[in-house]
This record gives sequence, C-alpha cells and structure tokens, in this order.
Amino acid sequence: LDSKLPQVGTTIFTVMSQLAAEHGAVNLGQGFPDFPVPSRLVDALSHAMQAGHNQYAPMTGIPALRQAIAAKTERCYGWRPDADAEITVTSGATEAIFNAIHAVVRAGEEVIVLDPCYDCYEPAIDLAGARAVHVPLDPASFAPDWDAVRAAITPRTRLLIINSPHNPSGAMFTAADMQALQDLLHGTDILLLSDEVYEHIVFDGARHESVLRYPQLRARAFVISSFGKTYHCTGWKLGYCIAPPALSAEFRKVHQYNVFCSFNPAQHAFAEMIAAEPEHYETLGAFYQAKRDRFRAQLASTRLKPLPVPGGYFQLVDYSAVSDLPDVEFARWLTLEHGVTGIPLSPFYAAPPAGQRLLRLCFAKNDDTMNLAMQRLSKL
Amino acid sequence: LDSKLPQVGTTIFTVMSQLAAEHGAVNLGQGFPDFPVPSRLVDALSHAMQAGHNQYAPMTGIPALRQAIAAKTERCYGWRPDADAEITVTSGATEAIFNAIHAVVRAGEEVIVLDPCYDCYEPAIDLAGARAVHVPLDPASFAPDWDAVRAAITPRTRLLIINSPHNPSGAMFTAADMQALQDLLHGTDILLLSDEVYEHIVFDGARHESVLRYPQLRARAFVISSFGKTYHCTGWKLGYCIAPPALSAEFRKVHQYNVFCSFNPAQHAFAEMIAAEPEHYETLGAFYQAKRDRFRAQLASTRLKPLPVPGGYFQLVDYSAVSDLPDVEFARWLTLEHGVTGIPLSPFYAAPPAGQRLLRLCFAKNDDTMNLAMQRLSKL
Ligand SMILES: CSCCC(=O)C(=O)O
Ligand SMILES: CSCCC(=O)C(=O)O
Repeated sequence: LDSKLPQVGTTIFTVMSQLAAEHGAVNLGQGFPDFPVPSRLVDALSHAMQAGHNQYAPMTGIPALRQAIAAKTERCYGWRPDADAEITVTSGATEAIFNAIHAVVRAGEEVIVLDPCYDCYEPAIDLAGARAVHVPLDPASFAPDWDAVRAAITPRTRLLIINSPHNPSGAMFTAADMQALQDLLHGTDILLLSDEVYEHIVFDGARHESVLRYPQLRARAFVISSFGKTYHCTGWKLGYCIAPPALSAEFRKVHQYNVFCSFNPAQHAFAEMIAAEPEHYETLGAFYQAKRDRFRAQLASTRLKPLPVPGGYFQLVDYSAVSDLPDVEFARWLTLEHGVTGIPLSPFYAAPPAGQRLLRLCFAKNDDTMNLAMQRLSKL
Repeated sequence: LDSKLPQVGTTIFTVMSQLAAEHGAVNLGQGFPDFPVPSRLVDALSHAMQAGHNQYAPMTGIPALRQAIAAKTERCYGWRPDADAEITVTSGATEAIFNAIHAVVRAGEEVIVLDPCYDCYEPAIDLAGARAVHVPLDPASFAPDWDAVRAAITPRTRLLIINSPHNPSGAMFTAADMQALQDLLHGTDILLLSDEVYEHIVFDGARHESVLRYPQLRARAFVISSFGKTYHCTGWKLGYCIAPPALSAEFRKVHQYNVFCSFNPAQHAFAEMIAAEPEHYETLGAFYQAKRDRFRAQLASTRLKPLPVPGGYFQLVDYSAVSDLPDVEFARWLTLEHGVTGIPLSPFYAAPPAGQRLLRLCFAKNDDTMNLAMQRLSKL
C-alpha cells in the first residue's frame, strides 16, 4: 500500500503517554489535567441523557450552546458573533482545525505555519494536497517575526495558521503583533486560522489577543477553541469554530460530511454550565497561575531552567545543564531513568534549531502529582 | 469565496427535520429513534464520568471497547479481528467513512458508488480530489448489477463503496452477491468500503452478509459500523472501522489528525454494555421487525404502497396513487398539508430514475408516534 501520508507516524503525545504508562512514570507529557471535571458539568450531562437528548444534534450544534458561546464571546472580547451564521460546534478543536483547512485550502496551495507548531496542522494540509511553509518563531522568545512571514508569502499562499497562547511554548501575541498581522494581511486574500484553545489560561494580568477582538482580522478568520482545555475534560472532544458567514458556510460543508454533528448530551451540559457560571472563564487564569508558580518555585531547586510561561499549561525547561542528549532521547531517558515524562520539542518543527535542549512539562496536575514529579526531578 | 464544494447544500436530513419542526409534522424523515437509550448504557456513561474517564482516550479507542468489538464480531460473524491492529473507534460512522476515503483515495482517482446512496459519500470523495462513479441499483429491487459495476471499473478505480442493509431502500446483499463481488474484485487492487451500520437490524431470519464473513473481501476492506443505530443513540456519535492492519494504519493517520480520539466516557459505557448484554445484537432484529410489521399492516389501509423491507429501519412507499408530484415537492407537500415528514429519494441519486415516486419513512418510533402519523396518512 502506497501511503498518502508516508511521513506521518504515531503522534509524539501518544508515543510519550504509552512510554510513561509502560514505565510507571509521572506523565507530564500529553496535555490533560488529572483533576476532576466540574461536578455541575458531569451532573448536567447525566441529566441531558436522562432528559432524552440522545439523538442527532443539529449539524451546527444545539442553538442553546451556540447562543451561550455568542454571549461568552461578547463578554470576553466585546463582540458578539451571530450564533446561527457564524458559530459551529465541533468534535473538538482538532476536528475544527481539520475542517477549516479542508474547507478552503486547495491542492497546490500553501499554508504558512509558525514553528514550533502543534502537530496536527501539517498532516491536514498535506491531505488537502497543499504544502506547509514553515516560518520559525524566535528560538528564545517564541515571538513571531512578521518580516519573515511576509517574505514567505507567495501567490499560492491561501492560509496562515496562528496559535496564541502558544503550544508548546506558552508565548502570547501582543497588541503590536496583532497590528503587524493586520498590516501584513491587508490587501491580500490570505485567510487566517487562529487556534485559541488556551484563550482563558493566561497569567499575570495579560490580555489574550483574540483575533475576535479585531474586526479586520476576524473578517477573514476561522477562530477555534475547545471546551476540553477550559473545563478540564479533554476527553469530551467538544470545540467550536467562529468564522464569518461565508467561511462558516464552507466550514460546515466539511463538518456536515465529516462527523455531521457532535455528542449531543455534552452540548446541553455546556450550554447549562456556561449560562450558570459565566465567571468560570475569568477564574481559570488564577487557578492555573497558582499551579504554574508553585511548579516554577520547585524547579528553582533543580538543574532544569524554566523559561517564561505567559499562558497555557505547559512549562518549557532547558535541560542543557543536565544532559547533552537530543530532546527525543532525553525525554526517553528521563522517563526510563527518572520516571518523569515530558514532550520533546523537535517534533513540533520542520527544522528544529540546532542544539536546542528543551522539554515541555504539563502542570495541569494535582499537587500530589507535581510533588512526585519534583521529588524525581530533584535527583537529576 | 470560490467554494471547494459548490454543489453541496444542506443535507436533505437537516432540511426535512427543520421543515418538520417548523410545521409541527410527525418527523419520520431523518433516521433516529424516539424511544429511550437502554438505561444500563446511560448509567454506565454517568459512572464512567464519575470514575474520572474524562481525559483523552487512546487515539484508536480504549482497549476494553476494542476487545468488546472483537468479541462481538467473532460472535456475530465467526471471525475475530485483532483489537490492536484492526479496530479503530471513531466519532460515528460518518467520520469513519470520511477517514477511509481520505486514507486511500487520491486526487484523480475514481470511487464507485451504487445509487441511490447515502449522501455523505460523494462530498468526501470530491474533497479528496477524486470522482464518484455512479452505478445504479435495480430501480425496483435495489439489487446490485455486478456486470454494470464491472463495466464501470477503469484503471483509476481505487475504491468501491457498498452498503447492506441498504439506506434508503432496506435491500440486503445475498450470499450470491458476495460471491459475485469476490469474483469481481479478484485480481484487482480495488479496495472496498462496506457501510454496515444497519448490520443488526435484519428481518425474517435473513442473514446479514457482512464483508467480515468473507476472508478475501475483508482483506481489502474498511468495514464500518455504528453504535448509534444499534443502541438507539444516534446523537452519541460513536462508531468504528475494522480493516486489515495496513489499511487500519492509513485510516488511523487520518483519524489521528481529524478528531484524534472520540468521547471517552461513552467508550467505557459501550465496553460495559456489550460485555453485559452480548445478546442485544440478536434481539434487535425482532424488536424492529415488530415495528415494521405493525407499520406495514397500518399502511395497507392507505393509498401508499409499501415496498419490501428486508433490513434497516426505513420503509419505502410508492405514493404514485396519491400524487404525481416529484418526490422533493411531494415530501414538502406532505409535511405542510398532512403533517407527516419523510425523505425523498432523488437526493440519493446522481441521476434519479425518471418518474420514480418513492418516499422513505422511518419506523424507529414509538407506537404513539406511528399512530399519529398513520392517522394523518390515512387521510391521503
Ligand atoms: C491530542 S493529544 C495532545 C494534547 C495536547 O494538546 C498537547 O499535549 O499539546
Ligand atoms: C446524519 S442525519 C441522517 C441520518 C440517517 O442515517 C438517515 O436518515 O439516513
């Protein structure tokens, strides 16, 4: 069989989770929390099933959930999308990213991605018959270099994918970035895919520069988010896409024939949850900031050097004082020899920076988990 | 915006469900039951959430569910697939169909479909840059014409999509069909996608001719099924694909970057349910046969002529004694004027047979629902 995706192997998240499980390591690799989903949400989902919401949801999502997303968006970003024409509920952010790419990118076109980037972008681009053009972020700050992005644009450029707060680095776009982005795209017909799944996990009073705040940007954008990251239920696989009516119409053509609709009872549960606790979004930053700060304080007593974490729930550490192994080997060694699993950064790059010695550690964990991890890391 | 799928509109199922809702019609259109999900399943799902199964499931599905599917397949078809290498859990059969097509069909290739066929096949084929080649089933019996299929094969043919029990007609492949299919594919490298979502809804003691029973066929096939149809929960969006290791590997590359994994708590619920009630599969035919027979008896007193229903939960009726309207107009008229909604057949065809006057009515409903529908239909 001649593979359509010969370069695709098992995602690094699965590889590392399996390795962690085999060796009884503390798994700070794949990004998921180990504390409970809010009980209101679990109860609401059970009630939705009991109330009989078990058949197909509307293809675009149940109206109550789309309304709740519209209200939440207005509350957070000062602009209310049209729940009917601009919001589509999806089976997780991953499905939304896949749909957006397939909705607008044609064979032979180019999509610009900023490296390091989440590993689901490029296979979706490849499958659409297009080509990912990789522009590196600054290797130290992970800030975008807009001149380099501009230089990468060709007549075939169809889409630019951005991600802030950024996975794996936690870096966030500034207002100046948004202005530069706006200038860059002005007068082009390049579309934007903004992966904002960590939108509510931001620290130190920083403001998340959602594309939804910028009329000129959102007019050409698919903005994608996820309930999994925001409500500690990554396995519930519910996300959404906000895009102008014409883009949403194309997005929905793919969604309709890809999964058709998403798990119905959870849609009712989130509609209820968002209406009942609209302040949840504003408390999430402080919740994770406490975890981040605790982890960083503990790391101070190790030979791992923590990089700044403006947002998200990942801590990058520079391990060059501990080992000179390349990151994939180091991650494996750390799992086998010290019982702690992280994610190496090189799989997030087309061309990893030479000599980079960084590991990503997820701090979306209980104190007990982090304490056990620290006990082991302190022996390094 | 220049659409990649200009010919795609809103699926007929959504169009008719919306029309039914607007006009308070009894909705026998979109295929979903209106009776409850087994309470064991609802309870098991609630327990799975409470037990904390709320983070990412393994990409291929949780092992317990894949094992349960393997055991169930052996019980039903006398052959046990390898749960690790050959079974992948998906977010419904629709996602599985989409993945299978994208995994193996390349731009410029051809995929043979048998008309009338389910409306998600062709858009997925189009999006892969390939072309659907439509071969009609017999307009009266909906039996396949294998000579016509053979004549449609070209050097570009990559995949043949089959569906038994068939939606919309309920027709089922016979053992002779399977033999003919085997002969047809022998010596070619054409792959097979077998949509078997109605596999357990078969009547009058008929045997479902699953591709999984035939070693030469399953060696080249993606066999796709769904829990939604079998457990009355179409909105839970859980299905699976069984395929040989090499095909499963390609399938998983798409699944991994399309939705990554499916709703975790439901996977635990189905694993428990299948193990606890393995006989469910054998009782489903009788359950639906009673509904079919009751409906057909009632239809005898109307001017709608019911066609045979060997399997599935749809009844085709010939309405030519009632109206000479084309089917899309008739379905609309029946909703508006008589308060009963069905699905017209022409959207399932590239070239609908001239003068065909058929409507599809779903009988996966409570007696009360069917009685109300019949009360209205008897006025025709
Ligand atoms: C799809 S598994 C990966 C989860 C995640 O978002 C991450 O770890 O970066
Ligand atoms: C995806 S909605 C259509 C449901 C169905 O299987 C049918 O009605 O044929």
